[in-house]
Amino acid sequence: MTESPAVQPTAAGSIDAGAEGFTHLAGDGSARMVDVTAKTPTIRSATAEATVLVAPEVLAALTGGTVPKGDVWAVARIAGIQGAKKCAELLPLAHVIGVHGATVDFEVGPDRIRIIATTRTADRTGVEMEAMTAASVAGLAMVDMVKGLDRAVELTGVRLLEKTGGRSGTWRRDDAEHPAAPEASDASVAPNAPVARG
Amino acid sequence: MTESPAVQPTAAGSIDAGAEGFTHLAGDGSARMVDVTAKTPTIRSATAEATVLVAPEVLAALTGGTVPKGDVWAVARIAGIQGAKKCAELLPLAHVIGVHGATVDFEVGPDRIRIIATTRTADRTGVEMEAMTAASVAGLAMVDMVKGLDRAVELTGVRLLEKTGGRSGTWRRDDAEHPAAPEASDASVAPNAPVARG
Amino acid sequence: MTESPAVQPTAAGSIDAGAEGFTHLAGDGSARMVDVTAKTPTIRSATAEATVLVAPEVLAALTGGTVPKGDVWAVARIAGIQGAKKCAELLPLAHVIGVHGATVDFEVGPDRIRIIATTRTADRTGVEMEAMTAASVAGLAMVDMVKGLDRAVELTGVRLLEKTGGRSGTWRRDDAEHPAAPEASDASVAPNAPVARG
Amino acid sequence: MTESPAVQPTAAGSIDAGAEGFTHLAGDGSARMVDVTAKTPTIRSATAEATVLVAPEVLAALTGGTVPKGDVWAVARIAGIQGAKKCAELLPLAHVIGVHGATVDFEVGPDRIRIIATTRTADRTGVEMEAMTAASVAGLAMVDMVKGLDRAVELTGVRLLEKTGGRSGTWRRDDAEHPAAPEASDASVAPNAPVARG
Amino acid sequence: MTESPAVQPTAAGSIDAGAEGFTHLAGDGSARMVDVTAKTPTIRSATAEATVLVAPEVLAALTGGTVPKGDVWAVARIAGIQGAKKCAELLPLAHVIGVHGATVDFEVGPDRIRIIATTRTADRTGVEMEAMTAASVAGLAMVDMVKGLDRAVELTGVRLLEKTGGRSGTWRRDDAEHPAAPEASDASVAPNAPVARG
Amino acid sequence: MTESPAVQPTAAGSIDAGAEGFTHLAGDGSARMVDVTAKTPTIRSATAEATVLVAPEVLAALTGGTVPKGDVWAVARIAGIQGAKKCAELLPLAHVIGVHGATVDFEVGPDRIRIIATTRTADRTGVEMEAMTAASVAGLAMVDMVKGLDRAVELTGVRLLEKTGGRSGTWRRDDAEHPAAPEASDASVAPNAPVARG
Repeated sequence: MTESPAVQPTAAGSIDAGAEGFTHLAGDGSARMVDVTAKTPTIRSATAEATVLVAPEVLAALTGGTVPKGDVWAVARIAGIQGAKKCAELLPLAHVIGVHGATVDFEVGPDRIRIIATTRTADRTGVEMEAMTAASVAGLAMVDMVKGLDRAVELTGVRLLEKTGGRSGTWRRDDAEHPAAPEASDASVAPNAPVARG
Repeated sequence: MTESPAVQPTAAGSIDAGAEGFTHLAGDGSARMVDVTAKTPTIRSATAEATVLVAPEVLAALTGGTVPKGDVWAVARIAGIQGAKKCAELLPLAHVIGVHGATVDFEVGPDRIRIIATTRTADRTGVEMEAMTAASVAGLAMVDMVKGLDRAVELTGVRLLEKTGGRSGTWRRDDAEHPAAPEASDASVAPNAPVARG
Repeated sequence: MTESPAVQPTAAGSIDAGAEGFTHLAGDGSARMVDVTAKTPTIRSATAEATVLVAPEVLAALTGGTVPKGDVWAVARIAGIQGAKKCAELLPLAHVIGVHGATVDFEVGPDRIRIIATTRTADRTGVEMEAMTAASVAGLAMVDMVKGLDRAVELTGVRLLEKTGGRSGTWRRDDAEHPAAPEASDASVAPNAPVARG
Repeated sequence: MTESPAVQPTAAGSIDAGAEGFTHLAGDGSARMVDVTAKTPTIRSATAEATVLVAPEVLAALTGGTVPKGDVWAVARIAGIQGAKKCAELLPLAHVIGVHGATVDFEVGPDRIRIIATTRTADRTGVEMEAMTAASVAGLAMVDMVKGLDRAVELTGVRLLEKTGGRSGTWRRDDAEHPAAPEASDASVAPNAPVARG
Repeated sequence: MTESPAVQPTAAGSIDAGAEGFTHLAGDGSARMVDVTAKTPTIRSATAEATVLVAPEVLAALTGGTVPKGDVWAVARIAGIQGAKKCAELLPLAHVIGVHGATVDFEVGPDRIRIIATTRTADRTGVEMEAMTAASVAGLAMVDMVKGLDRAVELTGVRLLEKTGGRSGTWRRDDAEHPAAPEASDASVAPNAPVARG
Repeated sequence: MTESPAVQPTAAGSIDAGAEGFTHLAGDGSARMVDVTAKTPTIRSATAEATVLVAPEVLAALTGGTVPKGDVWAVARIAGIQGAKKCAELLPLAHVIGVHGATVDFEVGPDRIRIIATTRTADRTGVEMEAMTAASVAGLAMVDMVKGLDRAVELTGVRLLEKTGGRSGTWRRDDAEHPAAPEASDASVAPNAPVARG
């Protein structure tokens, strides 16, 4: 082996376009955590949504008062917030960055729960994956709580709604790009509103 | 406080129907990890699917040979397998159980990647959430790799296909229960087949 | 080095009384995870308590209705349940065992929150530390939520109330052994009772 | 659903006073990781204490020389330092920040071990919870090592002693605010002093 | 897509020889966590070694008394024990199993530290990787502590010494199979012996 | 206890030379996470290598085409990248820092696999341990995949090759300092080159 070991990895570690613009893949197709040391820490945010499709009678039990108002929404919300923090552990090529803000909100229709997750950072990379992970994990936690009564429960429409900050600035979803997730019905229940707790 | 502290938690810890059959919620709506100490360890399996919708030109770059065959499928597969092991960490009320087998497979169409995850255990609870988590995390890892080229990429149709074992025995999805995820096109590329590596 | 490497560790790995009965310490004082492979899996439970001392006006805001009823109790409860699952990660010499049941309950007095955590397993070791960890982490999560309004908030009286199962069978705290934690006032608020949510 | 999904989460993500000044709770009582992206990274430190009450004969065995000097103090110290790093994982609403310094020290009396933990950071938030978590986990590790000989062992008096840095600057505990933890006896043994190792 | 989704994963999940006997690789070369649900839980143990090569003057400072006897050995030992518990998190295809016993011992020569790690379980798979991970992580922790004084410090000779239990029974290393690690010099210091603490 | 609790930990938390220059050990030999709050964030990198010695016939099966080209290299690469992110969790005294770039490459000879890992950060501390951890964990993942066919497989020669940045600037290994790891044979197979996938 003649070439200096110090050269090859430095080359591999440098910022390049990646294979055909796939920044997570080196020119030979091998995975890497792309070097972002040269990027500037700036305030970035991302908002993602996910939808959980639930049998109406099961969802009605959660929202209609037959079940005592309790922890169900908080369980999903906290799972989502903690999921955002675990993004770098779950996604092999994601960077370890500071998660500096996270919220998870719900909109409930007769047969679905819409989850909206926003993550914020003042670090070197965007937090799109943190937001999508938060929405997904919140959705999985909701699935976990209802699956005993509705095995067919489905997590769907996990997608980025908006991102701000970073070199590429603001992006907002153009729903024409992909078939939109089925429209959520008007939120007849706002899970965290005091009125909903009565 | 008059009642003995030892009584109350034992009561709370015992197996009961939960609020309206929500086993994860106690009668007063509070969250709990339901007691499964009395359940018998038996062989259980679960299979879940997820679908990632990607812009065809981006997906074509991954499968059509313009990108060197590399780690992309393995990254998603390994993320899914490791995600199955992290289920109890991600879902607040999930039990810590042994994950005794996990596979993640792909079917690729012109505009989508179908992910099929199977988890197996010989422990006290089913592994439905492990399978759905594996499919979701594999999907998120795929999203992470393509989002730089397709911000509108979407993870959809995360749902249980089949479960076996346990008290309730085998369950197989009846697609009529919920609108099915859009049919995956014929798999023109089997990502792991030697031919696809040429 | 004359003695066979295979012998020494096997000896070190065998069950012995430990230094002066400290099972976590070998005869020479070195730490070890004591070998429990020979123990029989049986149903075991443990209940621990912890008390958070909070400024009455701050606690009143949480329970008196001036703050919308929301996630505060669920945050602490879920932190405790997840803390129980992380016991083996937090305590260097703790075993990796299955946590098969966990509950966290609260009793609220004018100046304190009493936390009662119960953990259950059908595994090889007791879950006393899981219960004490659950109570402690639930308490720390409560501290985290009120510290902005009461920096002097204190977590106190983390102690085992009862254990059942295992070779040593049932043990119940004899409060004379140690000065008891200050008596919790009558629970004027049961955080999860529907009435308290009105 | 008419309002733009991008608006609501941005609103939810913005810095506000929170419910009645509870920054971890949004106006509707829902939990959130409060947005700190606008805060300036500065050097911050926090010192917390905890006290473990142990049966004197058990503690004497650890400190009096009948047990070979070994790893017992290091086990608790390392558990505390690692606990500080796990704060964001244990506390659902805590931020992922850099932990840039941590120490755990002990003072041993005839019937108690006083634990003093200090954490330091140059990041966006205070490290009070990191210090209290370090003290708590170090205490739980100590409990784990002695519980076989003293099931009544108790972790008590986990509280903040001092914080420095950040917008609110320095705060030092005024012991009148709360009943102080029982005075630790004069440290007759400084566990890490060479003399104590003889 | 014609074949039933439920069939393919079940097939993929079944026990087979794997590609050319690589059980972690399916017939098509894709990674998997091999199904061990059919295996019987039995007592299994594994012992591995690792050697850290350190500059003699640096090692002498640690063992010769110029540095107060302290936590250095415990830091490495605890890192190793905790590393054993993290095996399934570190190795993508490793199973989540119970770790039911772990010890880490040292033998110190003039220019090297030999680490011997033993792990034990009563679960479905062997713990060879747990033992090798424990030895490696203990070695890395030692490297971390001395690297400031010896950047050339090297971790070498991480290898299995013995395994017992399971279908394949006992295996003991035949040093002729591979060039042995350089013989460790006679242990002139047994780090944990009380005498060494004087 | 007369001295102010706030003083002692501050002193303990300050930057000092440590015991005999061991920065991870305080003057009394106790372990600590050394305070780096005063250090400046700068771009730092580190490259480490590790070598896995495998029976030639086993390695030939992986590289010679008798096994379908698949995930084996990606499994080890991803394990290494994720291992770099877990450094602060594995090494008790390591700081929680941002990992801002990571690559793992392989060179394959007839009887060995050489692993070269590079990590990069723009944070307060060097990433030498992240690089050595990445190389070690990638090596252990490779061991895990071949151990079923070669129990004598060995991980060796884990060592730093180069570091850049920070106060001490660039350091490059002088192989005379320590007996070098056995020279890797000419790489007859470059695992990630498209040709090797044919």
